[in-house]
Amino acid sequence: MIVTPDLHTLDYSIKYGVKCFELVAEPVKQEILPGVFMNAWGYNGSTPGPTIIVNSGDNVKIRVYNKLPQPTSIHWHGLNIPNDMDGVPAVEPSPRIDPGSFFDYEFLITNPPGTHMYHSHYNTVMQDTMGLKGAFIIKNNTTENIQKDYFIMLDEVNLKHLRKFIVKKGIYNINPFTMNSNFFFMNGRCFPYTSPLLVKKGDNCRVRFGNISLNNHPIHFHGHQFAVTAADGNPIQKENQIIKNTILVASGETWDIEFNCNNPGLWPLHCHLTQHVSNNLQLPFGGMATSVNYIGFKGKAANPVPWSFVK
Amino acid sequence: MIVTPDLHTLDYSIKYGVKCFELVAEPVKQEILPGVFMNAWGYNGSTPGPTIIVNSGDNVKIRVYNKLPQPTSIHWHGLNIPNDMDGVPAVEPSPRIDPGSFFDYEFLITNPPGTHMYHSHYNTVMQDTMGLKGAFIIKNNTTENIQKDYFIMLDEVNLKHLRKFIVKKGIYNINPFTMNSNFFFMNGRCFPYTSPLLVKKGDNCRVRFGNISLNNHPIHFHGHQFAVTAADGNPIQKENQIIKNTILVASGETWDIEFNCNNPGLWPLHCHLTQHVSNNLQLPFGGMATSVNYIGFKGKAANPVPWSFVK
Amino acid sequence: MIVTPDLHTLDYSIKYGVKCFELVAEPVKQEILPGVFMNAWGYNGSTPGPTIIVNSGDNVKIRVYNKLPQPTSIHWHGLNIPNDMDGVPAVEPSPRIDPGSFFDYEFLITNPPGTHMYHSHYNTVMQDTMGLKGAFIIKNNTTENIQKDYFIMLDEVNLKHLRKFIVKKGIYNINPFTMNSNFFFMNGRCFPYTSPLLVKKGDNCRVRFGNISLNNHPIHFHGHQFAVTAADGNPIQKENQIIKNTILVASGETWDIEFNCNNPGLWPLHCHLTQHVSNNLQLPFGGMATSVNYIGFKGKAANPVPWSFVK
Repeated sequence: MIVTPDLHTLDYSIKYGVKCFELVAEPVKQEILPGVFMNAWGYNGSTPGPTIIVNSGDNVKIRVYNKLPQPTSIHWHGLNIPNDMDGVPAVEPSPRIDPGSFFDYEFLITNPPGTHMYHSHYNTVMQDTMGLKGAFIIKNNTTENIQKDYFIMLDEVNLKHLRKFIVKKGIYNINPFTMNSNFFFMNGRCFPYTSPLLVKKGDNCRVRFGNISLNNHPIHFHGHQFAVTAADGNPIQKENQIIKNTILVASGETWDIEFNCNNPGLWPLHCHLTQHVSNNLQLPFGGMATSVNYIGFKGKAANPVPWSFVK
Repeated sequence: MIVTPDLHTLDYSIKYGVKCFELVAEPVKQEILPGVFMNAWGYNGSTPGPTIIVNSGDNVKIRVYNKLPQPTSIHWHGLNIPNDMDGVPAVEPSPRIDPGSFFDYEFLITNPPGTHMYHSHYNTVMQDTMGLKGAFIIKNNTTENIQKDYFIMLDEVNLKHLRKFIVKKGIYNINPFTMNSNFFFMNGRCFPYTSPLLVKKGDNCRVRFGNISLNNHPIHFHGHQFAVTAADGNPIQKENQIIKNTILVASGETWDIEFNCNNPGLWPLHCHLTQHVSNNLQLPFGGMATSVNYIGFKGKAANPVPWSFVK
Repeated sequence: MIVTPDLHTLDYSIKYGVKCFELVAEPVKQEILPGVFMNAWGYNGSTPGPTIIVNSGDNVKIRVYNKLPQPTSIHWHGLNIPNDMDGVPAVEPSPRIDPGSFFDYEFLITNPPGTHMYHSHYNTVMQDTMGLKGAFIIKNNTTENIQKDYFIMLDEVNLKHLRKFIVKKGIYNINPFTMNSNFFFMNGRCFPYTSPLLVKKGDNCRVRFGNISLNNHPIHFHGHQFAVTAADGNPIQKENQIIKNTILVASGETWDIEFNCNNPGLWPLHCHLTQHVSNNLQLPFGGMATSVNYIGFKGKAANPVPWSFVK
């Protein structure tokens, strides 16, 4: 089962053999740390929006309602679909969805199983930075020796009216027109509010990373090496897979990694750009980080860090 | 035939078996959007300069005239050539070319066919940012099953005295001493002023990317997957090629990609760093973007976007 | 022999079969250009700290003294070691080392030969930017056809109270809470103060790059192509190695490259992000750059550049 920690998987109904999904593009109040909210834009109540999971060969219809104050569109990033369903009204014969309107994106899934994304492609610099993005995963239905399968979306924003080093409860607005981000996310949350990825000793674990953001993020994993098994939703042949412990996920890319859970513990998994592991530069640690926690592992942090970041 | 959209290929003469090229390093007035010009530095009237195309085994002589107000040099980026022809006067026994002078770079092409670049290596931080760069391609003369072959140089600058969100006709100066770029280019132009890459259904299309700029740019292609076929001018063996839809082109790198034109349409090809697809943060879309247009494709943008960006 | 230009290799003693190292985390006054010092944090008197070299199968004990004004820890980046030795007190049962205290990190080297790193993982955004990092290399004891073997750590900081374009002798403080770096390092020095990598014609030369910094740095080498032979300390099989002349080293990554010294000269090796090859934006050239110098090469720079940058 593919799990997107801290986010939902989107339900669907089947009508005449077509998998029917509904996304509502709308303002969302996203809780990024306990009591710290941002006024963002997302889908169905969160940013990133819910994860869409389909199979190769599926016919899908995704109804997109626009409850934003401006037109929007959705690009199905990585999918080989017809031009008029690709969601780029500035270039393609694909519609702009005006506020109060909806559009049905309908296409056949012809890509092989893999990790893709969806995101706004209208007023991109603003709408993508405001949070209009999510995961689109094509499941592998053949037998895989994978016991845990996670998706993590990397993201960042600049929240206004918070002086450096200050994080306090409240609701903040995003400035989408700057690259000076001060908050860094995995699935819409900052460490330590990110939920750990749970594994058992002996599991083979896959983590799928996606990035629709302002920077290219190198994600480092502690205590293990991993195989790099897929690039932008395309499998890498076993004999071509390289072994690493840090994977650079550029904006627009997805990468899948796989590792064997052979080293019990509580293991950080985080962006390695130094300033991306803090919340508004606060010490000791935060931002684009989570951990892989072995279920039943007995150890606990020897020095509980005073997480007094929220005042 | 290798085509560099919106730029010229440099002519040459043959003297005593040597291919003789001429580059003039000089101030250029580059039109980046209709009526919007920047005072840049380039070669032979444009930035990037004209594309140089040679064959493996060629003897070449490139006479470089310096019509800039300061000394310069050219580095033949990626070529295995003698030290005194490599163009880095700060390190190598390779000359600095003073204003009003010229120098003849002479070397044998010993690299295999592939995509390389040339650029200033004197006062680098200033001269490279001002635009002194171009493509240097070693053609493959063996039979290739490639019907279209394009080169795209990625670039960016900060234009002074243009407040955020404002793009209006005029002539602007570059601030080469900042990383806060507000204009992002493919071959010296911003979308939608970039010329599309034309293809026919069934073509095998190669796109060669080069980057001499302030950032690492991930380029995403819509509606297709591509094979990554060469790295920094070095072919990647077929069995090692990975399939992707976004290619991270770091500064100093070249990457060749190849795809089959099997999905007719008008397909965006653009940097995926969110703020690199706008012109001075203007909406809806601009910057480091172009499209791959299938000749004869009937569709057209359903919602023609009012491109009123130039006032 | 593995050489880290401009830095030391850490001595050790053997007690009861264990290799015992000592690191002192402390304020250091690092000379980055002749007469230009920065007040940084490092280990044993320098930033980066001394290079640690071990063998696969070694039992090691590394005593870390904290002479900093705040708690610290060390993460052994890339090593497969027990959770309580991994050095991330915010997540793991691994201790925080208070000022005036020490801790003995003890573990068995189970990774294969390769290039790794160590760095602070406490108050990361501050401590890593202040300079608490170094190389951790697992030697290959099998016969290798490698005659030269170098390590280079990439880094950058913002030095305060130096206006753009000014570099003058003095002692400067780091601002660790900004991404606006103005000085860029290889092994803690700026070009031209970086010591060249010496090679002989015919040598096979390996260069190992590590990066614990604020950016992803693409390193370009002149006059040669190289094979990419290891990723994050994991060997890449010969048949999977690609040939390049620019290697993108993301923060948190290590990459090993190998080339044959077949083109005598003095060859630049430098970051290709345009603004990273200057010292506080000074012309003509500086920053994250060094050169590979063939011993006995007769050429010398035709136009000696007046290195009057230090006033």
